[in-house]
Amino acid sequence: MTILDRIISHFSKLPGLGKKSASRIAYFLLQSDTANIRQFANDLINLKEKISECKICGNYTEINPCEICSNQNRNHKIICVVEESKDIFPIEQSREYTGVYHVLKGVISPLNGVGPDDLRIQPLLSKIQEQKIDEIIIATNPTLEGETTALYLAKMIGVSNVKISRLASGLPVGGDLEYADSQTISRAFKSRSQFNQ
Amino acid sequence: MTILDRIISHFSKLPGLGKKSASRIAYFLLQSDTANIRQFANDLINLKEKISECKICGNYTEINPCEICSNQNRNHKIICVVEESKDIFPIEQSREYTGVYHVLKGVISPLNGVGPDDLRIQPLLSKIQEQKIDEIIIATNPTLEGETTALYLAKMIGVSNVKISRLASGLPVGGDLEYADSQTISRAFKSRSQFNQ
Repeated sequence: MTILDRIISHFSKLPGLGKKSASRIAYFLLQSDTANIRQFANDLINLKEKISECKICGNYTEINPCEICSNQNRNHKIICVVEESKDIFPIEQSREYTGVYHVLKGVISPLNGVGPDDLRIQPLLSKIQEQKIDEIIIATNPTLEGETTALYLAKMIGVSNVKISRLASGLPVGGDLEYADSQTISRAFKSRSQFNQ
Repeated sequence: MTILDRIISHFSKLPGLGKKSASRIAYFLLQSDTANIRQFANDLINLKEKISECKICGNYTEINPCEICSNQNRNHKIICVVEESKDIFPIEQSREYTGVYHVLKGVISPLNGVGPDDLRIQPLLSKIQEQKIDEIIIATNPTLEGETTALYLAKMIGVSNVKISRLASGLPVGGDLEYADSQTISRAFKSRSQFNQ
């Protein structure tokens, strides 16, 4: 196997890339700057070496605890529970949320053999017991597995005296009724709110 | 900029990848095997260091001359002229061709400021003069630039006594008339051949 074949094989194993796009990338890299590729390769090596899981929230981070957990300007009494680390980025981008996070590292999915014990649920329950938490916002995805996990979490947290909320689900902003699926429309009707004039 | 940000930025600069797919890949890599990523990074570094251009045909290669040029079982009297190195791979995959190649490293494109002198045309003409060549197959793409380049090459080579041919262009095998563009259909009509029963 030549190096070019190996590079194509590496790239074609990445999500969203097939053999054709991988080979296009490989030829692109052949024509690009050597210093750039070295930097790329070094960053790849550092990726796994320097990044660990935050011991508080479970997010990927270079410093431990992570920037969010160690930021005293954020509200540590509100915890937003997400499925995966990557869900934190779009939430941070929205600049709507100033609390902290808790990463579950997955969802309850009996079909894939993932039960509650495989997720970071126990650390969340401990946090709720040990600290003064005002609200838990469950931000698992509005999928079958995400909803199941949200229901399970709500039941487990329910025994304590913490406010539990769930991200609203409905028509996406900028979306079009014409292209929305019926479940989303049905959800948007059920969760409709008073129109303030 | 964190390492994760840098990795996302590296990937999003690759052809066909945007910010979303790059971040999906970065999180995928975070969860994958460290040894694998090290190998990926090493191959990336080696890509530019070990691969050079074949001094005969201009193809990217780890050995020089390349495997095709140094293979005595191939017909060195037939040269297939391609725009880029990456065009050789699909031709080799078809197993239809047993001659050698010549990579132009581009096409004549006045809009992009690429003239005949920017391409590897002179080395091709020298080959034709110095060696006993039977046929030149022009396999530039059936695009405006590719056709222009093919015409130019045919004119330059025409003075010598070499057979010049051009890859046939028409409906792709397995394609559907319904979805073919009119230029392809018109080309398929012009190049229609006698049906042998």
